Amino acid sequence: MPKFGFIERQTKDFINIDPLQTGGKLSEEAKKALVEWGDGYSVCDFCTGRLEEIKTPPIYDFVHETLPEFLGCEVARITNGAREAKFAVMHALARPDAWVVLDGNAHYTSYVAAERAGLNVAEVPNTGHPGFRIEPDRYAEVIEETKKKGDVVLAVLTYPDGNYGNLPDAKRIAKICHEYDVPLLLNCAYAVGRMPVKMKEIGADFIVGSGHKSMASAGPIGVLGMREDYSSALLRKSAKYKKKEIEFLGCTARGVTIMTLIASFPHVVERVKQWDKEVEKARWFSAKMEELEIVQLGDKPHNHDLMFFESQKLYEISKKAKKGRYFLYKELKKRKIHGIKPGLTKHFKLSTYMVPKEQLEIVIRAFEEIIDRYS
Amino acid sequence: MPKFGFIERQTKDFINIDPLQTGGKLSEEAKKALVEWGDGYSVCDFCTGRLEEIKTPPIYDFVHETLPEFLGCEVARITNGAREAKFAVMHALARPDAWVVLDGNAHYTSYVAAERAGLNVAEVPNTGHPGFRIEPDRYAEVIEETKKKGDVVLAVLTYPDGNYGNLPDAKRIAKICHEYDVPLLLNCAYAVGRMPVKMKEIGADFIVGSGHKSMASAGPIGVLGMREDYSSALLRKSAKYKKKEIEFLGCTARGVTIMTLIASFPHVVERVKQWDKEVEKARWFSAKMEELEIVQLGDKPHNHDLMFFESQKLYEISKKAKKGRYFLYKELKKRKIHGIKPGLTKHFKLSTYMVPKEQLEIVIRAFEEIIDRYS
Ligand SMILES: Cc1ncc(COP(=O)(O)O)c(C=O)c1O
Ligand SMILES: Cc1ncc(COP(=O)(O)O)c(C=O)c1O
Repeated sequence: MPKFGFIERQTKDFINIDPLQTGGKLSEEAKKALVEWGDGYSVCDFCTGRLEEIKTPPIYDFVHETLPEFLGCEVARITNGAREAKFAVMHALARPDAWVVLDGNAHYTSYVAAERAGLNVAEVPNTGHPGFRIEPDRYAEVIEETKKKGDVVLAVLTYPDGNYGNLPDAKRIAKICHEYDVPLLLNCAYAVGRMPVKMKEIGADFIVGSGHKSMASAGPIGVLGMREDYSSALLRKSAKYKKKEIEFLGCTARGVTIMTLIASFPHVVERVKQWDKEVEKARWFSAKMEELEIVQLGDKPHNHDLMFFESQKLYEISKKAKKGRYFLYKELKKRKIHGIKPGLTKHFKLSTYMVPKEQLEIVIRAFEEIIDRYS
Repeated sequence: MPKFGFIERQTKDFINIDPLQTGGKLSEEAKKALVEWGDGYSVCDFCTGRLEEIKTPPIYDFVHETLPEFLGCEVARITNGAREAKFAVMHALARPDAWVVLDGNAHYTSYVAAERAGLNVAEVPNTGHPGFRIEPDRYAEVIEETKKKGDVVLAVLTYPDGNYGNLPDAKRIAKICHEYDVPLLLNCAYAVGRMPVKMKEIGADFIVGSGHKSMASAGPIGVLGMREDYSSALLRKSAKYKKKEIEFLGCTARGVTIMTLIASFPHVVERVKQWDKEVEKARWFSAKMEELEIVQLGDKPHNHDLMFFESQKLYEISKKAKKGRYFLYKELKKRKIHGIKPGLTKHFKLSTYMVPKEQLEIVIRAFEEIIDRYS
């Protein structure tokens, strides 16, 4: 028992470049909301039957007005995360023996959501090393092939994907999907809350975001936007409990997480406007890494803070270093830099999002020193 | 936009007797954990592939050792809440055209989870006014009848239920279910974290708890315990991502909620030991209310802090009062007492859990004054 109770977070005063962590850091407003709304079902004090209907605090307005506008969709809902949003869509649209088409860069949660919904999965391959790009026309090929095997009830595009931070031509992919009468879901776990993105401008049918990943919110929480046409399938009500939406089991983020999402929202709206600067900073970082012969893969020039690197040099070092492939992790840890997974040297990803340039300079210097030291 | 950002909780300094709220108030340790672990995916800094495998913070030990012992089960998992745990079980066990048997006092989320899992629902009726009891032998009847229509894949008992706070003879119900080869799930959203309850002692197959309802945790979060025999169905892994459990979409409470659950856990273990005192206090409160002719329905003497009351008198007043049926809510609000739903007068529920006796005395005095004033 003594090991439970309050526990400290070890990485608290580290520079954190883990892609999972950079977009989920709380705003000051969200930190205050945490304390105010921390208790269990705090938001349910004035509930009249469903989370999205709560007027005090103003969840109703947030979900019915603000969020649809922000996502560029007609109808929005709160979920327990991006994966739960994807599962809700897949589960609502699933039919026996049907298929979903995923991009080859899809996050594992898209795949697992499809498995849980009982859907077969077909994948649109990426172009391989070094670009790993998703080419729109391949969607046509894969959908066509898959239609021979069964119904294709949904296509998914990861925008950007969580490995390379690539941003494919989503508009064209939406158009292609619609030529085959297949709705398109944009998995924007790494976009919504970081960069400008609107479902309607792209022409997609669903859009999914992650509060704890990219909206400066405590988690788990996600957002789901959809076209009105799909709301009857997604928002189907219980036969017995007329207010309760089946796919959301009545209510999803029934606690503090919705309040940190709302608290950070003005901050998120502002930071999205600064996206150009974040891209510029990412490109600067990528160039600096390449000076060290750590090569950035994926889209180039890059359009996102999430970047994937390849380093033959670090890999060679790992073969001889005393701590083996853990040397990089340990050297970075010594310098209070966190976020590159222990054991990785040849390939790793990181994110520069909202990390101040001075901190990124420390990161670059660290790589430089480490390479020097071991070479 | 100005209405978003930080928002105050209006009921902050109220006496809160809403059954949703009394067991979810954060412990001091949990309040500290909130601030420490508030950021997005904070707990994932040292993840090696799945939430339950994380050793820093000690989620692994919590889920694999502490929680099974606490719940009296063989295998435990963290979920996004009680309803999500119930859905996971129903979804994993569902077959086309199959049935689930629910007690007539089941929470709406059990029903909606069954609908989402595509299961038909049969109900074991309660005994009606005034006891609303669930009699074990009725499970035999209903299972027998339902088996004529199709497979019965699961039975659910709400223990206690969320309306009357009744505690049926769960052991006998488990025995009966097993005579028909039907596994029993105990929905202990109002038990786990409040009162002593062990799955194995009752002889059930699944047990579900709610962190934000009864374990002094921020939400949404729940716990699911099961017998080993069911783990292959429930913990089925992805075909492609070998570490990821399909029913949990890889990870569930991937953020601050698991840390408040862990932070409060020692406090919760201690308070469960004080359960007798809570029952005594509830009985005392019930007796005081009955002196005011506000009659407690359900089990008598009562065995839980959640109680359902009936008042002909308050109902009569509501017909004539200026504010109509809202008079009671408004009078209580004036006295900074929250938790009885606006508009209710004849029937309402409340909880005395962890509410100090002095505060309950204020509540009783309030009812007395209100009745006096309007009579
Ligand atoms: C591309 C992508 N999609 C979805 C997710 C899952 O997000 P959530 O935790 O909100 O389910 C992730 C998480 O890493 C991701 O990288
Ligand atoms: C008896 C009962 N079960 C389940 C639930 C749902 O709990 P959760 O919010 O953890 O899904 C409730 C909530 O009110 C309840 O009263």
